[in-house]
Amino acid sequence: MIHAGFDIGGTNIKAGLVDDQGRITVKRNVPFPKEEYHSCIAVMERLIADMLTEAGLGRSAIADIGIAVPGSIDPSGSVVLNAYNLGFHNVPLREELQKRYPEIPVGLANDANAAALAELYGGVFEGCRTAVLLTLGTGVGSGLILNGKMFNGGCGRGVEIGHMTLLHGGPACTCGNLGCIESVCTATWLTARGREEAARHPQGAVAKAAGGLIEHVNAKTVVDCAKGGDPAAKAIFDTYVDHLSSAVASIASMLDPEVIALGGGVSLAGDFLYEPLRTQVKEKVFFRCDYTIVPASMGNDAGTIGAAMLCSHAANA
Amino acid sequence: MIHAGFDIGGTNIKAGLVDDQGRITVKRNVPFPKEEYHSCIAVMERLIADMLTEAGLGRSAIADIGIAVPGSIDPSGSVVLNAYNLGFHNVPLREELQKRYPEIPVGLANDANAAALAELYGGVFEGCRTAVLLTLGTGVGSGLILNGKMFNGGCGRGVEIGHMTLLHGGPACTCGNLGCIESVCTATWLTARGREEAARHPQGAVAKAAGGLIEHVNAKTVVDCAKGGDPAAKAIFDTYVDHLSSAVASIASMLDPEVIALGGGVSLAGDFLYEPLRTQVKEKVFFRCDYTIVPASMGNDAGTIGAAMLCSHAANA
Repeated sequence: MIHAGFDIGGTNIKAGLVDDQGRITVKRNVPFPKEEYHSCIAVMERLIADMLTEAGLGRSAIADIGIAVPGSIDPSGSVVLNAYNLGFHNVPLREELQKRYPEIPVGLANDANAAALAELYGGVFEGCRTAVLLTLGTGVGSGLILNGKMFNGGCGRGVEIGHMTLLHGGPACTCGNLGCIESVCTATWLTARGREEAARHPQGAVAKAAGGLIEHVNAKTVVDCAKGGDPAAKAIFDTYVDHLSSAVASIASMLDPEVIALGGGVSLAGDFLYEPLRTQVKEKVFFRCDYTIVPASMGNDAGTIGAAMLCSHAANA
Repeated sequence: MIHAGFDIGGTNIKAGLVDDQGRITVKRNVPFPKEEYHSCIAVMERLIADMLTEAGLGRSAIADIGIAVPGSIDPSGSVVLNAYNLGFHNVPLREELQKRYPEIPVGLANDANAAALAELYGGVFEGCRTAVLLTLGTGVGSGLILNGKMFNGGCGRGVEIGHMTLLHGGPACTCGNLGCIESVCTATWLTARGREEAARHPQGAVAKAAGGLIEHVNAKTVVDCAKGGDPAAKAIFDTYVDHLSSAVASIASMLDPEVIALGGGVSLAGDFLYEPLRTQVKEKVFFRCDYTIVPASMGNDAGTIGAAMLCSHAANA
């Protein structure tokens, strides 16, 4: 049997047919139709038919279908409450796709939850009972494995580690609160500090790396300049690691997880990030011990694979 | 069958015989012998014999024995790694008691974990899959129920919510880190701010309530003066609730628990604490919803009952 997975983003819809071991056998990547949600359903139907043709399989080969979206899901797992990048608000996405496939179970989850689930199937969470995924991008996404299963909040509302307070009374967060992890641990934060630096020092390394165009400075510019030894970029990056290590140490003091995985753009900074991060987490965590802090392994396929495994995973619970 | 529980504190050892429903049938409270740990073992043996006599039972009536201590336990649940108030460091407490009762299972746990377990048996966590206990006293203790079971960290090192960062770069915490929840959400913090206020304003309400003796000011003095309408005490209390609500909202954004219970001295402040706390948690939590935030229900018996249920609880896992 094969599992169909969809990872719906504001730019692209990724789709895949995935085997029982969580390996993608066929995949697709098409633009997200920026229209009302029935267009998205139509694209998903077409993608399933198209992938089945490539695989030489009939519709009856599909065991189940899963959908990952960047947003909040209602506790029953049926409705996308809010997915701002998709323009989806109170969209009954699971039911609508289910109508097209009445004989096949359909599941729906937050994309960071799905990514954590993907890591459980052959990724860095394989065999874990307790594990944490943080995605460091525009925002901070999070997925938890508890008791060897994907966890979606005790009341089913989600897992929003990015909106835990790290700096009480600190910078305003997109959520309306102050000093959330998301307000200081994102690529967005690195970009903003980098642009400030470029504006302050037009002849500095950060400004030069962006060809003198402040709006071309991004998180990678700051990381690259810090790696290259520029003191201003290094100071920004050090502050970032200080924040992130406090966030990771906090999670470790609470859950003492077997593995902490980082995804998203910032996680690509390599040992330049992981080495000081591991050292500082050990210094800050209550247990003063080494934690396994590693890059997430599923990359761009994480959401698709996790989505594909949703129904069979739940069936094991 | 009956379960024997011990709650060992730096001042007293509490002991009880507890039935399968988590009700204490016989209990004792004796001074903690401030000597090396064998004295403590001897006291525990004597207490068991004494309670069995009162209950009219023989030793064979005891199904199992549990011990709760205010400190960290090794992942195997045998050794007290550090319990500062007891002067216990690397003490094989479980094994030593086990030698005296070779035929009876003996368990060992952190006292806040035990208190959370007690709430699961007929307390405010009854029927819960996901619940959080915070004890607000000299420090901030914590216990988690995950998947309907007591959780002691994914690697067995414990659950130290009090040492999550709330105020990055903030006040020094007893653990050596900066800005932990414990550094700003304890009775100790209220006491310190109250004494500063009494020193600043010797004619103020706080100083007067303590008979002019600054060292007599404690957390209760501040709470009572705030309740009485003193603006200085109210400002301190409001800051405390602001910190505590950010801590509770952070936990709720991560775990979305069914119940959050508060224990310890500060939790006795009643609706004066709970009403603003619930309002602010709703304003701060990512999901912007009401959470069930209630006083812990087991009071002084929590550790004893939880300890008594340790072995039978684990046996159900």
